[in-house]
Order: sequence, then C-alpha cells, then structure tokens
Amino acid sequence: IGMDLRCQCTKLESRRMAIKSVELFPPSAHCKDIEIIATLKGTGDKFCLNPATPWVKIFIKKMLAKKP
Amino acid sequence: IGMDLRCQCTKLESRRMAIKSVELFPPSAHCKDIEIIATLKGTGDKFCLNPATPWVKIFIKKMLAKKP
Repeated sequence: IGMDLRCQCTKLESRRMAIKSVELFPPSAHCKDIEIIATLKGTGDKFCLNPATPWVKIFIKKMLAKKP
Repeated sequence: IGMDLRCQCTKLESRRMAIKSVELFPPSAHCKDIEIIATLKGTGDKFCLNPATPWVKIFIKKMLAKKP
C-alpha cells in the first residue's frame, strides 16, 4: 500500500479471508473514508477491506461483543 | 509492548485519547482475549485499550456505521 497523503487504500477487498488482525483508521483530514486494513494469518499480507461488506462489520462487532 | 507468545497487552488503558488508528486482534491460540491496540495521533505511541470500556466500543461502532 503506497503511503500517500490521501487514503492508504486504493483497492477494496470483499472476499472472506483468515484474519490475524484488523486495523481501523477513522476518517481524517487527508482521507474522508474509514479504512480497514487486515493482516492475514500465515503470510502476514495486508489487504484493504471494504468497510461496507457485511462479514467485515459482523467480524468486528462479534469481537467487541465477546465477554472477557 | 513485549512480544511474547501469550497476549501482547499487559496493561489496559481506559482513559480517552486522540486515536489515529486501532488494531483489533481476535482471540487466538496463544491469547484468549481480544486485544485492542491504539496508535495515538501526533506521537504515534501505542496503548492497549480495555475492550470492555464503553467509549472504545462506541468509537469503533461509530466508525463502522459511517456511510461511505
């Protein structure tokens, strides 16, 4: 992902994938959209996820719902 | 944050802070709890946030709710 002062994400992925972590970037001065960057299990590759994709929202909300 | 094969977070922060991004780690083989690591605006310092803290959940859910 080329780091430019606009958004980090150019291509948004919607396919399901084995996620090690997701990083959420709130809208900011140089990028008006939320950006969600997933790190994959195994390879550690990074993908930009489409924030509107249902499974992405469910995945994150489920994580938050878990009782410690 | 010392990287050990258990959890990454040892101290959980609940105070509000100016967040550049949050990284969510789902429960895994070596850490049974979700972990939320925030990167601060400005310094780029990293803090572990308490996943049970209301403002943390609201912050993340609000981000997801935004229409692109």
